[in-house]
Amino acid sequence: MKFSLKRMLIGRPLKSTELGEQRLSKRKALAILSSDALSSVAYGPEQILIVLMTLGAAAYWYSIPIAVFVVVLLVALILSYKQIIFAYPHGGGAYVVSKENLGINAGLVSGGSLLVDYILTVAVSISAGTDAITSAFPALHEYNVEISIVFLVILTIINLRGVTESASVLAYPVYLFVAALLILIVVGIYKIVTGQFSPDLHAAIGTPVAGVSLFILLKAFASGSSALTGVEAISNAIPNFKDPGPSNASKTLMVMGGLLAVLFCGIVFLAYYLGSSPSPTETVVSQISEDVFGRSLFYFIIQGVTALILVLAANTGFSAFPLLAVNLSKDKYIPRMFQVRGDRLGYSNGIIMLSVFAMLLILLTHGSTEKLIPLYAVGVFIPFTLAQTGMMVKWWKEKPKGWGSKFAINTVGAFISFVVAMIFFITKFDHVWPILIFLPALIFSFHRIKNHYDLVGDQLRVDKLNNVLPTIGGNIILVPVGGISKVVENSLSYAKSLSPEHLIAVYIGFDKETMHEFEEKWENRFPDVKLLALYSPYRSLISPLSKVIDKIENKARQENRQVSVIIPQFIPKKGWHNILHNQSSLLIRTSLLYSKNVVLITVPYHLKK
Amino acid sequence: MKFSLKRMLIGRPLKSTELGEQRLSKRKALAILSSDALSSVAYGPEQILIVLMTLGAAAYWYSIPIAVFVVVLLVALILSYKQIIFAYPHGGGAYVVSKENLGINAGLVSGGSLLVDYILTVAVSISAGTDAITSAFPALHEYNVEISIVFLVILTIINLRGVTESASVLAYPVYLFVAALLILIVVGIYKIVTGQFSPDLHAAIGTPVAGVSLFILLKAFASGSSALTGVEAISNAIPNFKDPGPSNASKTLMVMGGLLAVLFCGIVFLAYYLGSSPSPTETVVSQISEDVFGRSLFYFIIQGVTALILVLAANTGFSAFPLLAVNLSKDKYIPRMFQVRGDRLGYSNGIIMLSVFAMLLILLTHGSTEKLIPLYAVGVFIPFTLAQTGMMVKWWKEKPKGWGSKFAINTVGAFISFVVAMIFFITKFDHVWPILIFLPALIFSFHRIKNHYDLVGDQLRVDKLNNVLPTIGGNIILVPVGGISKVVENSLSYAKSLSPEHLIAVYIGFDKETMHEFEEKWENRFPDVKLLALYSPYRSLISPLSKVIDKIENKARQENRQVSVIIPQFIPKKGWHNILHNQSSLLIRTSLLYSKNVVLITVPYHLKK
Repeated sequence: MKFSLKRMLIGRPLKSTELGEQRLSKRKALAILSSDALSSVAYGPEQILIVLMTLGAAAYWYSIPIAVFVVVLLVALILSYKQIIFAYPHGGGAYVVSKENLGINAGLVSGGSLLVDYILTVAVSISAGTDAITSAFPALHEYNVEISIVFLVILTIINLRGVTESASVLAYPVYLFVAALLILIVVGIYKIVTGQFSPDLHAAIGTPVAGVSLFILLKAFASGSSALTGVEAISNAIPNFKDPGPSNASKTLMVMGGLLAVLFCGIVFLAYYLGSSPSPTETVVSQISEDVFGRSLFYFIIQGVTALILVLAANTGFSAFPLLAVNLSKDKYIPRMFQVRGDRLGYSNGIIMLSVFAMLLILLTHGSTEKLIPLYAVGVFIPFTLAQTGMMVKWWKEKPKGWGSKFAINTVGAFISFVVAMIFFITKFDHVWPILIFLPALIFSFHRIKNHYDLVGDQLRVDKLNNVLPTIGGNIILVPVGGISKVVENSLSYAKSLSPEHLIAVYIGFDKETMHEFEEKWENRFPDVKLLALYSPYRSLISPLSKVIDKIENKARQENRQVSVIIPQFIPKKGWHNILHNQSSLLIRTSLLYSKNVVLITVPYHLKK
Repeated sequence: MKFSLKRMLIGRPLKSTELGEQRLSKRKALAILSSDALSSVAYGPEQILIVLMTLGAAAYWYSIPIAVFVVVLLVALILSYKQIIFAYPHGGGAYVVSKENLGINAGLVSGGSLLVDYILTVAVSISAGTDAITSAFPALHEYNVEISIVFLVILTIINLRGVTESASVLAYPVYLFVAALLILIVVGIYKIVTGQFSPDLHAAIGTPVAGVSLFILLKAFASGSSALTGVEAISNAIPNFKDPGPSNASKTLMVMGGLLAVLFCGIVFLAYYLGSSPSPTETVVSQISEDVFGRSLFYFIIQGVTALILVLAANTGFSAFPLLAVNLSKDKYIPRMFQVRGDRLGYSNGIIMLSVFAMLLILLTHGSTEKLIPLYAVGVFIPFTLAQTGMMVKWWKEKPKGWGSKFAINTVGAFISFVVAMIFFITKFDHVWPILIFLPALIFSFHRIKNHYDLVGDQLRVDKLNNVLPTIGGNIILVPVGGISKVVENSLSYAKSLSPEHLIAVYIGFDKETMHEFEEKWENRFPDVKLLALYSPYRSLISPLSKVIDKIENKARQENRQVSVIIPQFIPKKGWHNILHNQSSLLIRTSLLYSKNVVLITVPYHLKK
């Protein structure tokens, strides 16, 4: 079994007709597509407090109104994406919506941002999850990068096995995480209501704060909205849902939005009430659960599940990237290979490409990918803005029944998204600037690739009117020979069976004496085959052969004849034997294939021993 | 200019007839072939003292009689190799001598040891030279490996440029080193004679020493004889000398032997007289030159030149390895590619292979290759012993005039070499054991490779008696097609021009609907070409194609017909375009070439844009 390792890791190949069975139920889809969004409540609230901390602990009450705004943005995004799901039931999300309503460049900006963003999702989430684990077990800290790579490889294999199975594996931790945080919030609020915490832990809402400015509040809001990265994943993945796709996707999106809102608000509220303050050594979620449960078993469960879901959040990238790549590839903006389904019906090339880039990011940053978070967030809000602007244009043009409220929803969403993106650019330009380089570079490449495919298509298209095959007036066959052997005999036999008009053997000699000896031997052995012996003082095979072919080919073309070169090649019994033989055949073939307009015929001589 | 970087580094290609001009004069040969042997006086004397040190400083006087024995060994080796040079004027040294007189396995033991040894020479010498430099400039110490790699790359490029030019580059440092050490010795002895040093610095010769044993003295002798590594280089390289090769080589060998003896004895004597003692922070040569010159400019010149010659000693490996590889390759024990002369007439493959392995050793040992020295020395004395035993056998068998003294010389040489090799095995087994693994492994590979070449030769040899080409009774041509395009039209035109008995297009469909559509389109477009449409539920191209070929091929063979597969392939204008196209053509071709007995015809369609 040649492919047994691959089989063991990836599973048996699936028939194309088994595709339907690989589709996602709502329950599984929620697990597979929302771990990214849900996991961000583990750091989103903390991001708000980190900004407010510059004003002092008295400012922490601002997190409550800011959270309200984040939830408003969340609601706007969820409603907007719900509209997108029904308007574009074949998926594609921001890329398709922007492209169809705002033109191709807006679409490519969205698509390019998202492609890069999914790579960042994978790298950032895996690194963060690894950090969480190695923080719990400090002895592992020096192996951070290695552990991240192991997680990445495991996720890659799971995804190559196929979508449904990966969902089965991933469903439990996501639901465990949701359950654990819900229990934390409910018990926390119960203890607050029953007065088990002092109300002096926090400043009252409305306490005046020195130095507060709209700029800082907006920055805190933008930071908090990094918790919303990942909400677009469902709208891109509609074709992965069981039928009816749009309806199932929409319901899943609503459930995810609800869970995200509840968890986010709960954590923000508890953090505020219990006076948690960001610290480099302990996360806010850890502080809350310690306050509520003490360092009990349940505390460790919450920490463990949080770490796990961060790693699994990377899986959103694995679901979304290949599908987006297919959309871009169908439009010819990225290489065609991203449309090929692998043995297990997943888009293997997309999965592997994503994995490779994420691995590079992890290796290049030595696993410290935290600085990539603002880049990651801005790369999400650019397509958010474009998609919703696109929807505004769509409603405005089409004006369906009740379009006013739809238009309003998307307008609010587009506006807030745009503001958030702008706040990132203004307040975190030092982290965000690379997008201004790689996004134009990507879009330039997209157009280059598209242009190439179009050109190739034009050149290969057959003439609809002229149905007659061009005829060739005759054949000239050249056989480069290096000696007199069975391989050469074999090739000559074959050449003769094609009855060409001219059959010429070509010998290239590195010294004149050997060359003359060879000419004599040839004359004795194959008196009926013309031999052209060429002297090559620089010991090159290619260059004299190339010259002689040019001469013959020029003449042949005038007479409408085709020149073919027969390359005698013996095939050793075992692959490793190839290193024992000078690869002249391969060299000649490759060189002629790309530089000459000749047909290349390989006559194999299979060795039996 | 596609190859301009290569040209700049390596130089313009040379004609084969320019080979004579690349040969070495005696003066250049001395520089290029003896830097290894001469450089070892920088550490050989110290090796003796390190062993004697275990008995206390009073034992240092033993270095004088030990040095005498080392010189005796040196004289025996030099005389022996002089005899080898004239007996084997085409070079090959220990490998050829052992092979011809003791049988092939003795030859392969010699050849294998030396091949590995040259790699060790390069790695050890470069590392030692780098250490010398970074000891002088401690700030560079952390870049030891990087500096070694840079030296290695520079030496590789110099050697790829060709032998004579590398000799010009290398001649000065070697002569500078010899001159510097001679001046050191002469001035040192002058100062001793004129009584400028106290005679109390050393114990008198003959002072009784507690704990002295023959074992320790033999160990000291063996360690000191590591200074003799490299003396065989000249006898391997006779074809590199200007005519008359043997006479020139012999003279060069004698000069080298004389210089080596003088430098070695001078350093040992000065070290003894001045009471130098091995120290981890300062080499013995450095101590001597400090005693003689103080920390003057001349002291730094000696240190610098010593460092330089250690790096250049690596060059001996670069001269000797490719030539030995050619000899082994001509006998079919290593791959044929080692016989190919590069653009600059050097054996590029040998040079590159040596460089790669040396780089691996440097990287694996992090540049600390000192522990490889005993391995390196034992790997030299094994072929020494075999070569001289071989010469004994030769004289005994041939009994030329005056063979008695020749036989005696080689007997002494063989005996001492054998003893030295055994002492290394006994006293330094912990460093030397790897040779017992890799030497048998190498010899096994040599035989495997030889066996393969012999088998291939037998299978390819034409029948001398039967001069008639086998005839093929007819042709069947298959054309796998993926669509209807100019590429396919082109291939069909070509196929028709060969007027085969059967022409069949093969289409592989991944879903039935598309497949039926294609069949209709084909029927309209090419009604006279039979289409075989195959359904592939697992989306594999190869497996259904392979099955159909097997079926057709079986039938064809019975009818003495040849099956050919035409692979339509469009050639994009630029190389990078290839990544934009699924490489189906390449995949199909590679798979069929190795697994089926069919002729493969590539009909290229060159895109113009």
